[in-house]
Amino acid sequence: MAKKTVQVGLLGLGTVGAGVCRLLQMNSEQINRRAGARIEIKKILVRDKKRKREAAVAPQLLTTDPQEILRDPAIDVIIELIGGVQEAHTHITEALRHKKFVITANKDLMATAGADLLALAREKGLNIYYEASVGGGIPLIRPLKYSLGANRIERIMGIINGTTNYILTKMSLEGMDFDTALAEAQAKGFAEQDPANDLEGTDAAYKLCILAGLAFNSRVRFEDIHVQGIGGINQRDVFYARELGFGIKLLAIGEEIAAPAAAAFDPATGAASASEAESDSRSGSAASSGPSTLPGRLALRVHPALLPLTHPLASVLYENNALFVVGNAVGEVMFYGAGAGALPTASSVVADLIDAVRNINHEVENGIMEADFQPKKFVPKEALFSAFYLRLQAKDEPGVFASLATAFGQEGVSLDMILQKRSIAGIAEIVLVTHEVEEKNFNRALGRIQKTPAIKELNSVLRVIGK
Amino acid sequence: MAKKTVQVGLLGLGTVGAGVCRLLQMNSEQINRRAGARIEIKKILVRDKKRKREAAVAPQLLTTDPQEILRDPAIDVIIELIGGVQEAHTHITEALRHKKFVITANKDLMATAGADLLALAREKGLNIYYEASVGGGIPLIRPLKYSLGANRIERIMGIINGTTNYILTKMSLEGMDFDTALAEAQAKGFAEQDPANDLEGTDAAYKLCILAGLAFNSRVRFEDIHVQGIGGINQRDVFYARELGFGIKLLAIGEEIAAPAAAAFDPATGAASASEAESDSRSGSAASSGPSTLPGRLALRVHPALLPLTHPLASVLYENNALFVVGNAVGEVMFYGAGAGALPTASSVVADLIDAVRNINHEVENGIMEADFQPKKFVPKEALFSAFYLRLQAKDEPGVFASLATAFGQEGVSLDMILQKRSIAGIAEIVLVTHEVEEKNFNRALGRIQKTPAIKELNSVLRVIGK
Repeated sequence: MAKKTVQVGLLGLGTVGAGVCRLLQMNSEQINRRAGARIEIKKILVRDKKRKREAAVAPQLLTTDPQEILRDPAIDVIIELIGGVQEAHTHITEALRHKKFVITANKDLMATAGADLLALAREKGLNIYYEASVGGGIPLIRPLKYSLGANRIERIMGIINGTTNYILTKMSLEGMDFDTALAEAQAKGFAEQDPANDLEGTDAAYKLCILAGLAFNSRVRFEDIHVQGIGGINQRDVFYARELGFGIKLLAIGEEIAAPAAAAFDPATGAASASEAESDSRSGSAASSGPSTLPGRLALRVHPALLPLTHPLASVLYENNALFVVGNAVGEVMFYGAGAGALPTASSVVADLIDAVRNINHEVENGIMEADFQPKKFVPKEALFSAFYLRLQAKDEPGVFASLATAFGQEGVSLDMILQKRSIAGIAEIVLVTHEVEEKNFNRALGRIQKTPAIKELNSVLRVIGK
Repeated sequence: MAKKTVQVGLLGLGTVGAGVCRLLQMNSEQINRRAGARIEIKKILVRDKKRKREAAVAPQLLTTDPQEILRDPAIDVIIELIGGVQEAHTHITEALRHKKFVITANKDLMATAGADLLALAREKGLNIYYEASVGGGIPLIRPLKYSLGANRIERIMGIINGTTNYILTKMSLEGMDFDTALAEAQAKGFAEQDPANDLEGTDAAYKLCILAGLAFNSRVRFEDIHVQGIGGINQRDVFYARELGFGIKLLAIGEEIAAPAAAAFDPATGAASASEAESDSRSGSAASSGPSTLPGRLALRVHPALLPLTHPLASVLYENNALFVVGNAVGEVMFYGAGAGALPTASSVVADLIDAVRNINHEVENGIMEADFQPKKFVPKEALFSAFYLRLQAKDEPGVFASLATAFGQEGVSLDMILQKRSIAGIAEIVLVTHEVEEKNFNRALGRIQKTPAIKELNSVLRVIGK
């Protein structure tokens, strides 16, 4: 029997919690109409009932006892917004045990325990919704699960940390240095007082766990990702990058390097290759199994990278986020928007709530991919392929370029771009961009260069992402 | 009882039809797993069984008799890809009568008869899926319906015609003239041999009918949209626009101009305005009705416009499409990708097919917004607000700027930018950009200018979209 009112328990009333209350008030008529029921917040878990709050909620809704929510049979859905892993995990597990649907914006929890919690939810005939855990208000989880569901995802590439993107944009467009840009980000509330989690790429890597898990149908742990932060990026690198036609972005990249059986095709025309046409005619039915989805190896990384200014991700500026996805049918698509903020994040939470309420009232079977995770292998760091950007100081003397070229050549690394401006006091600043190369070869070349007497200092090494 | 195999009838085996067959073969294992059933194409309607085809399908699947598909009780879903309005309408109506779910990529049909067909589908407990009718492979329909479902959509702004975007990009980035760019678009298959439908904005306006109907929950007819094509755009305009920091794009814009009751708020912080905080405390419950969704008036238009180069839509190049959406919670989001092509479009069709199969097997209640269309008023063309760009030839003599400024000033139009380069043979080319103004005032100012003796020729008038 469809419920006319669905009661919700809210765990946490911080920025996002207040945003959710506010959005439910602001657009109540539309939200209730789309959910097909009246949504009512019955209880809100807080740490301190007396604290003055932004959100205008009736005091009698507040409680400090989680069990008042988790064990209330009248509550069908809980929204977990307390953050952190341990406590949230305990509450969500208990909520599932009490047959409640779960909505969470908890990135750390979904990155570390998401697969297990989703499996538990499925076992109970419930679901966990987590659109808000990555990318704030940008629709990412639902499009990956549903809209792109017919695609084998080949690559995802995201700007999914607003703090670092804000800093890099300020450095690039306004010529600001790193420290000033960071201070401004902190002043504007885009960066925490201890910004390590953002700057070192940890935040982006957790988000990549969630997105890559979904995109590639696999369990991804933080440890499976090669992570490097934006520390050490210098104003000069940003300047040279622009001169060469690149922006510098902190990118989270996931790729499935397909097994060799997958055949080539042209996504624009859909023209079948000869070998596939053969297999089609043999099979005799339009829907028979053609070339299948062979599990590939996953290459997962978070690092700053030079990206051509013509790439759609290069125009994602300041605190904005975006995810660029390459599917084997759709080609390239991108999702762009505000990656954080009270109301944008609430937009995702309440979209999940509408879905949850519809599912409660219509007993929809839940979860289409999460419990299907397949074990996949990961590509070790040394076997990743990238082009590289280097900035170095060398003695301005004959033969320096030759010795550089030799060092690279001996390891099979070829050069794509070279830039040298006027030298000062006998020292020239040289910028090099290599063609794409396996990391282990590049590292060997780097070792050779560092031993070259004419090279005084190696200032920067950054990866270059071509497309 | 869940069906292990769901049989599908395909109407049409052109480019997209072939793409659908190909995608069902290519990713069959994954598609069937996500659908929860084996998907099988049982019959394909074609006009000529003997024609040689790209798609490798068994000849026995082909039929020239639509009734073989529409009346086959074993077929649960039809995919309509024949295009055109009349025949497709007849087939879809008949399919619904025979209790079949419908998937269509038919933009013209959904724009002109979508609301009625969706109502009929709902009445029958079925659904019509039409993700592929707009934006090819880009997820647009599903995000508007679900991911952004908690938002009151304030504005949608799209580059939804690949042909015109290709031509304008070639003119802007490669300095090509209009005719050469059009010829190249035709040679590459991005433009039809008769390109009027694209160039005049008709194609974009049909797509706007569908998107605006969904975004603003209203029935939108082609006649409700103010349409202007890209004819007459000159290489000089593209050049000046770039100099002033703009790109020129054919934009499809829909806005809901809210009733005055809606209160101001800051989407980034979610800070409540004073009046709303009051209404909240009166209501006493977090989920009670706050400021409600009052129906506003819709302003709908398709026209070329100058757009700041920093706008996310400005970097949508060549044949790509994108939709920029502003919601009252999420703020600004954008969806980007290939707006056409066999496999991208098939990606959307098969995503719909997965949904349809899941709905067939789990008896989900269907359609959440389409049957809720509310009647809304439309803003007449004269009452739209835009800034304007003008290019004109004037005698190079004292007092010309003064007479221009006077003509504008008398109608309350203020100027934002003025550009004049060296004059040739006593004639100066002048470029003006106005501040935002109501169209009827601008038109009166234009009338005054055309009567000014020093103005020899008015070359171009284009709208400027600020944000």
